[in-house]
Amino acid sequence: RRTGFPEVIYGEGKTQEQLKTLFLKLRESQTVALATRVSREKAEAVLTACPEAEYLETAGILRWIPKDVGYRPGYIAVVCAGTSDLPVAEEAAATAETLGSRVERIYDVGVSGLHRLIDQMDVIRQAQTVIVVAGMEGALASVVGGLVDSPVIAVPTSVGYGAHLGGLSTLLSMLNSCAAGVAVVNIDNGFGAGHFAARIHQTQHWATLEEEAAK
Amino acid sequence: RRTGFPEVIYGEGKTQEQLKTLFLKLRESQTVALATRVSREKAEAVLTACPEAEYLETAGILRWIPKDVGYRPGYIAVVCAGTSDLPVAEEAAATAETLGSRVERIYDVGVSGLHRLIDQMDVIRQAQTVIVVAGMEGALASVVGGLVDSPVIAVPTSVGYGAHLGGLSTLLSMLNSCAAGVAVVNIDNGFGAGHFAARIHQTQHWATLEEEAAK
Amino acid sequence: RRTGFPEVIYGEGKTQEQLKTLFLKLRESQTVALATRVSREKAEAVLTACPEAEYLETAGILRWIPKDVGYRPGYIAVVCAGTSDLPVAEEAAATAETLGSRVERIYDVGVSGLHRLIDQMDVIRQAQTVIVVAGMEGALASVVGGLVDSPVIAVPTSVGYGAHLGGLSTLLSMLNSCAAGVAVVNIDNGFGAGHFAARIHQTQHWATLEEEAAK
Amino acid sequence: RRTGFPEVIYGEGKTQEQLKTLFLKLRESQTVALATRVSREKAEAVLTACPEAEYLETAGILRWIPKDVGYRPGYIAVVCAGTSDLPVAEEAAATAETLGSRVERIYDVGVSGLHRLIDQMDVIRQAQTVIVVAGMEGALASVVGGLVDSPVIAVPTSVGYGAHLGGLSTLLSMLNSCAAGVAVVNIDNGFGAGHFAARIHQTQHWATLEEEAAK
Amino acid sequence: RRTGFPEVIYGEGKTQEQLKTLFLKLRESQTVALATRVSREKAEAVLTACPEAEYLETAGILRWIPKDVGYRPGYIAVVCAGTSDLPVAEEAAATAETLGSRVERIYDVGVSGLHRLIDQMDVIRQAQTVIVVAGMEGALASVVGGLVDSPVIAVPTSVGYGAHLGGLSTLLSMLNSCAAGVAVVNIDNGFGAGHFAARIHQTQHWATLEEEAAK
Amino acid sequence: RRTGFPEVIYGEGKTQEQLKTLFLKLRESQTVALATRVSREKAEAVLTACPEAEYLETAGILRWIPKDVGYRPGYIAVVCAGTSDLPVAEEAAATAETLGSRVERIYDVGVSGLHRLIDQMDVIRQAQTVIVVAGMEGALASVVGGLVDSPVIAVPTSVGYGAHLGGLSTLLSMLNSCAAGVAVVNIDNGFGAGHFAARIHQTQHWATLEEEAAK
Amino acid sequence: RRTGFPEVIYGEGKTQEQLKTLFLKLRESQTVALATRVSREKAEAVLTACPEAEYLETAGILRWIPKDVGYRPGYIAVVCAGTSDLPVAEEAAATAETLGSRVERIYDVGVSGLHRLIDQMDVIRQAQTVIVVAGMEGALASVVGGLVDSPVIAVPTSVGYGAHLGGLSTLLSMLNSCAAGVAVVNIDNGFGAGHFAARIHQTQHWATLEEEAAK
Amino acid sequence: RRTGFPEVIYGEGKTQEQLKTLFLKLRESQTVALATRVSREKAEAVLTACPEAEYLETAGILRWIPKDVGYRPGYIAVVCAGTSDLPVAEEAAATAETLGSRVERIYDVGVSGLHRLIDQMDVIRQAQTVIVVAGMEGALASVVGGLVDSPVIAVPTSVGYGAHLGGLSTLLSMLNSCAAGVAVVNIDNGFGAGHFAARIHQTQHWATLEEEAAK
Ligand SMILES: Nc1ncnc2c1ncn2[C@@H]1O[C@H](COP(=O)(O)O)[C@@H](O)[C@H]1O
Ligand SMILES: Nc1ncnc2c1ncn2[C@@H]1O[C@H](COP(=O)(O)O)[C@@H](O)[C@H]1O
Ligand SMILES: Nc1ncnc2c1ncn2[C@@H]1O[C@H](COP(=O)(O)O)[C@@H](O)[C@H]1O
Ligand SMILES: Nc1ncnc2c1ncn2[C@@H]1O[C@H](COP(=O)(O)O)[C@@H](O)[C@H]1O
Ligand SMILES: [Mg+2]
Ligand SMILES: [Mg+2]
Ligand SMILES: [Mg+2]
Ligand SMILES: [Mg+2]
Ligand SMILES: [Mg+2]
Ligand SMILES: [Mg+2]
Ligand SMILES: [Mg+2]
Ligand SMILES: [Mg+2]
Repeated sequence: RRTGFPEVIYGEGKTQEQLKTLFLKLRESQTVALATRVSREKAEAVLTACPEAEYLETAGILRWIPKDVGYRPGYIAVVCAGTSDLPVAEEAAATAETLGSRVERIYDVGVSGLHRLIDQMDVIRQAQTVIVVAGMEGALASVVGGLVDSPVIAVPTSVGYGAHLGGLSTLLSMLNSCAAGVAVVNIDNGFGAGHFAARIHQTQHWATLEEEAAK
Repeated sequence: RRTGFPEVIYGEGKTQEQLKTLFLKLRESQTVALATRVSREKAEAVLTACPEAEYLETAGILRWIPKDVGYRPGYIAVVCAGTSDLPVAEEAAATAETLGSRVERIYDVGVSGLHRLIDQMDVIRQAQTVIVVAGMEGALASVVGGLVDSPVIAVPTSVGYGAHLGGLSTLLSMLNSCAAGVAVVNIDNGFGAGHFAARIHQTQHWATLEEEAAK
Repeated sequence: RRTGFPEVIYGEGKTQEQLKTLFLKLRESQTVALATRVSREKAEAVLTACPEAEYLETAGILRWIPKDVGYRPGYIAVVCAGTSDLPVAEEAAATAETLGSRVERIYDVGVSGLHRLIDQMDVIRQAQTVIVVAGMEGALASVVGGLVDSPVIAVPTSVGYGAHLGGLSTLLSMLNSCAAGVAVVNIDNGFGAGHFAARIHQTQHWATLEEEAAK
Repeated sequence: RRTGFPEVIYGEGKTQEQLKTLFLKLRESQTVALATRVSREKAEAVLTACPEAEYLETAGILRWIPKDVGYRPGYIAVVCAGTSDLPVAEEAAATAETLGSRVERIYDVGVSGLHRLIDQMDVIRQAQTVIVVAGMEGALASVVGGLVDSPVIAVPTSVGYGAHLGGLSTLLSMLNSCAAGVAVVNIDNGFGAGHFAARIHQTQHWATLEEEAAK
Repeated sequence: RRTGFPEVIYGEGKTQEQLKTLFLKLRESQTVALATRVSREKAEAVLTACPEAEYLETAGILRWIPKDVGYRPGYIAVVCAGTSDLPVAEEAAATAETLGSRVERIYDVGVSGLHRLIDQMDVIRQAQTVIVVAGMEGALASVVGGLVDSPVIAVPTSVGYGAHLGGLSTLLSMLNSCAAGVAVVNIDNGFGAGHFAARIHQTQHWATLEEEAAK
Repeated sequence: RRTGFPEVIYGEGKTQEQLKTLFLKLRESQTVALATRVSREKAEAVLTACPEAEYLETAGILRWIPKDVGYRPGYIAVVCAGTSDLPVAEEAAATAETLGSRVERIYDVGVSGLHRLIDQMDVIRQAQTVIVVAGMEGALASVVGGLVDSPVIAVPTSVGYGAHLGGLSTLLSMLNSCAAGVAVVNIDNGFGAGHFAARIHQTQHWATLEEEAAK
Repeated sequence: RRTGFPEVIYGEGKTQEQLKTLFLKLRESQTVALATRVSREKAEAVLTACPEAEYLETAGILRWIPKDVGYRPGYIAVVCAGTSDLPVAEEAAATAETLGSRVERIYDVGVSGLHRLIDQMDVIRQAQTVIVVAGMEGALASVVGGLVDSPVIAVPTSVGYGAHLGGLSTLLSMLNSCAAGVAVVNIDNGFGAGHFAARIHQTQHWATLEEEAAK
Repeated sequence: RRTGFPEVIYGEGKTQEQLKTLFLKLRESQTVALATRVSREKAEAVLTACPEAEYLETAGILRWIPKDVGYRPGYIAVVCAGTSDLPVAEEAAATAETLGSRVERIYDVGVSGLHRLIDQMDVIRQAQTVIVVAGMEGALASVVGGLVDSPVIAVPTSVGYGAHLGGLSTLLSMLNSCAAGVAVVNIDNGFGAGHFAARIHQTQHWATLEEEAAK
């Protein structure tokens, strides 16, 4: 039944040459091609060889999506507090998009300015699933978790200092969320959250097809 | 659009009297009633007052589901390695069931006896979403994550000793899973995993209804 | 200029006899007498010897306040999320009261039910200073911190399990609050928060007196 | 009743351009403008565009205070042990000043030379509130806490090595202070301490105005 | 040249019978006999068999010192803050005494009441070596270290709660002391401190004898 | 009976000159010469002086094995998941070879692609002993441990980010392996694993010789 | 080729009834039967049903070895420092014996009495493999590791207090051993060490048989 | 009675100019002048201004000792395992020398080559006090502690990798030493150990003088 998800390249620690070879290979064998943790410098070399690909600077993502690849119905909401967390939020968003899900970005809605978040709750509530990206104390995950009924994927970021312990503090905070329906991925793992969200979205889509078929 | 999830009682630290009052109140106002972390002793008192409720010993769960409440199409797979992890697995399973999802239990499939797991992969692959419950080094989450395309919710348990650090070791292990598509909840938080899984399942169901309606 | 704060007895690990002797001594030499971390059993013995004292069960506090001791103008708000955190909240409240500050209690306002908190913001905003008591992920401190302009004293509690690490997780979370104006005391240290709040309140009062005197 | 505190820019990770834009915007809309964690290099660009601003090298602070903005009555004492802690102490002091509080600096008074501290106790005791900045074992917070009756805000610094753990050791030490009336902010968070102190000072001032008004 | 120190029995986890046999054996073969971490119950059995021994309740020490065993010239100062730390302080004191050093006890001199400590500085300064026993934030070690020129042995205790982490916080604090001349032993290790101090004292004595002999 | 293992140079922190001197000395006095953690730059200098030596770039190893040095019967299997772990795997393999054991390399067999591992189980099962090198969650050690009967030496690597904690997460995971027969060496310690494996292999060889001799 | 190791019962958390059923089943299907972490009380019930089994109190082990089961040639040395570590040492020894290896016990040889260890080095050096069991600082593993050429399996124990952190301190110490050829198992995991040692011993034996056969 | 120890400059983080000024000042007011953690570059500038000073490269120490300053009778032994620990050992040795104690250096005596240590025990046993400097697992402190009767000051170093945790592992190991008479200073704190040792040595000397005077 399953159609499967594409393989993804983890760019960290790969040479420009390795990246190019792998990317071109995936471009041949898969519907889409995706590489994360790619610097602009490494990306250039691949873009020369494969001009249809695009490089997303903030996300550090290199991807190739053929023009005729469409999205599943519905969308994923990516909610993010501060400007420093944007790279992680964009990694999540771009991953989900590449894996077939439309994304709504709701940025700059930290809990220390609660009204801005509340103003945006409608678009967040309508999403199939919600990704919350936050550093510092990560309270945003609990607040959003308490306001929606869809699954909330929390991504702690390493943005902070001192007792922030490189993101451990946010991670622990999110694991202890008082709101039910929150699950967590590794610190700065925007890719993991985007992937997980796309899987939820995809199984929702399968469910539709199957229930339809059952009729 | 949303119908919402019921309130759930966290039994830990509540007196028998408080538990009874709360449970009877939820039984009045909600479709189903659910209390977790309930000892047999506390449960008895409620069961006397509300004989339609049932107590699940291993799960430590007290619940009331009216006869005519049905399940969504499809099911959630709860995969579990050792017998010591059963209370957490059952908390997850019973929570998901009470929130409207049918559950398939695949127990005693630890990675040190890989063939037993592989024998059961079909029923795991067909699930809408998969919950993996494991203690010790928690490798089961990565192995399952690598074999399915649906979202995998990993629940670390406090089963272990020494460098296990009360479950921290398993938690960290699961957060670093090399398999994409794995998200994690708190140590021993079977309830959280069951709730999260039911949310995924529910949004899949909404998706169906909406796509249908859109036709 | 300063009039000073009374000595306070830390009941933990003291025998009934030691407690009684100390309490009676303070009752002689000070305006008020206060002992924290006192069990009902130990309290009884002192209450027999000093019937004007009162024992506060939830707070675990034994105190004696003469009838004619009044409060400073204004009040301290003690904000608390769950019922399990009540002992710590009450320790804070009772300490502040004994040290001369009126207290408004705003309980059961966790962030997973945000509207209940927002309904109470007026009384919180009017306070001289705010104490926020929370366990789990401690998001309440940041949310309140973002909604008021007075100093917010955050008290992490040991309520939680697994990755909560006996309160460390909440503590770290509060130290990393994205809201400015939040300071933190030790886990479960309701006494410390109440004392600190009373000091703020007291210096406010001095300020008044001095500015007046300066006229 | 509340007049509110200005928004503050966190300079870390912002580009020169972003900083300039934000600073000029705040300069328009607020009574004062304040940016922390600003390098000299970034500051220059803003100073060219806004010559009335000033850059404080040790504090890493860029601020603009119009000439006619005065201070509240009374002052905040900033107490500091070693020369290595000065940047944090100055961040605290400059923040408090910008937010309307006069500051008395009492530096080079570490506990290993106790007499120097004791010589300065008068000016410390007269303060509305006291900020103690210390690295290493952070004993200064407890010693000062035991000698004054006003609230003491302790700021642990990352100055130390080995078992200092980047400041965690000092932080824990301060959270366990045997002196009542000590609250703590994050490691190296001079800004947070200065802000918190200014809030205390401000509410003291409100109290005065209200009590006056009440007459 | 060296005469050596006696073997010492660590009572924890030994049965009454094992303790008695070992103690009687050491009583035969050594100048003195010493057992630490001994409960009253276990002690009784040995005292019946060896009535010349004495049991020190607070210290949890059982020891036998023949009447004619004298002390080295000079003394060791044992400085201690709170009453909860007394068992550890007494373990240190009784150990040092049994190993031949006279001890001066300076108790109840915590840094939150600095004047009480300062009143006792003369007797502390005259000691050959100083043992400081403290829990909570352990600031006493640094304060004493800054006031004397003899070696200071710091003993962190497990007295505290929350972020005290079973004494780790105090231990780290003492290791980072800003006062030179402070060395540290394990949490609650009064025995280790007493033994180390007696070694210092003993080598001082040897030094004397040797320099004399050299004449 | 024992013939002993050669001394090995730990290159980290040694100057080029020190390395050269030591290497040439060992080349004189031992059957083989081995230096680990050697950069290409440092290696060049030694290679000029000792052209019979060889430098292994990925492993960071410089070694000299005379042509006529043979291998013990049998081989060690080095199993490794990702390309980022290769340096550690190669350090292990090259160390074992230099100490007299033939090595079979089974690379790119991570648990997220289980079938690739299963395809290679025959060559792994035939080994005298197995070294498993893995980062991330380290599940490979448990999976392999469950499939073989020979001793499995697990080497955690520092490959990962966030909650990986520089390899601590993998280390803890491997120490808690649910498969019996797994022992662990320090993070990134390929040398230690190769050495330990060669010792096992060598004692196996001794055993043979002795049993033979006994006939 | 492989004959495999028997399944072993982990007694912790199993009921008397479960233990009995499992033990009797293994007794039927395997050459030997072994259960670890068994209390005397649970053991009695099984011994009644299976009188040929034996219970080893210190080790907490229940086992059945038929009379005619012999040992492999050679032996394993179990080296242990203090009496408190004996249960772990005995768990290791009894496990290895049950799995077919003769064991030499070398107890009471802690590094603080080095000569006692050195007196026993001959029997340690002759072993096929060495298990070192130690608590406290675990220095014994490094000292033994430096004196033998066979593989050394280090077992940290939870014996200690304060900064011992339940055995973590010893574990870390052993992982950082300056002696090559030391691998480590989990805290208090005598079973794991005994099993690992038996695997080494067994593969040595296989090696013999194969080399023989090859002739 | 006390003559006191000189003030010492901590060079880390001081500018060349600050260092020069401070050094010249101490040279005026004290018997000797000592600065630690000084780079060669910073040292040059001071040496130009004060050519009688000397710079010790390995120790990172700059010091001035007038020709006619002598040593106390007896000496301190500095024992050290590996070459990587030399900077810390030399910081300890040079500090002690500058503070008036002669030093015997016993280097390259790690426990993995025990005989080299044992060969040197005579000179170690004759010392007034012993400093042991070690990284990795720090076993050397326990081994030496078990062989001498004088006080042993253990200095953990940050030499190691992986689970060494920047020296924390060695620190914990030394705090848990099974040998009585070992006290510990901070990681890499050679200065602290040298200072502490000189204090012991000095009080030994006072003791002599006093006992003499008493005659
Ligand atoms: N940013 C990322 N963080 C964590 N895992 C990733 C990331 N990007 C890709 N991956 C995973 O890394 C795997 C590829 O690793 P590699 O073979 O080293 O390229 C993919 O299967 C992904 O699951
Ligand atoms: N040095 C600092 N440390 C922590 N928080 C700060 C600091 N300076 C400013 N902030 C906070 O950071 C917020 C602004 O963050 P941003 O929007 O990233 O500029 C302000 O509301 C302040 O509360
Ligand atoms: N990569 C490595 N990791 C850990 N230990 C090593 C490594 N390479 C060599 N060693 C050990 O370091 C010792 C030599 O250290 P050194 O005297 O500093 O060269 C040898 O005896 C080896 O046991
Ligand atoms: N290497 C060192 N490690 C720790 N403390 C030191 C060191 N060198 C000097 N000190 C201490 O630092 C103090 C001087 O600090 P400062 O005033 O910053 O120069 C002296 O009193 C010494 O006790
Ligand atoms: Mg919700
Ligand atoms: Mg998968
Ligand atoms: Mg606010
Ligand atoms: Mg005070
Ligand atoms: Mg001093
Ligand atoms: Mg196996
Ligand atoms: Mg060896
Ligand atoms: Mg000794």
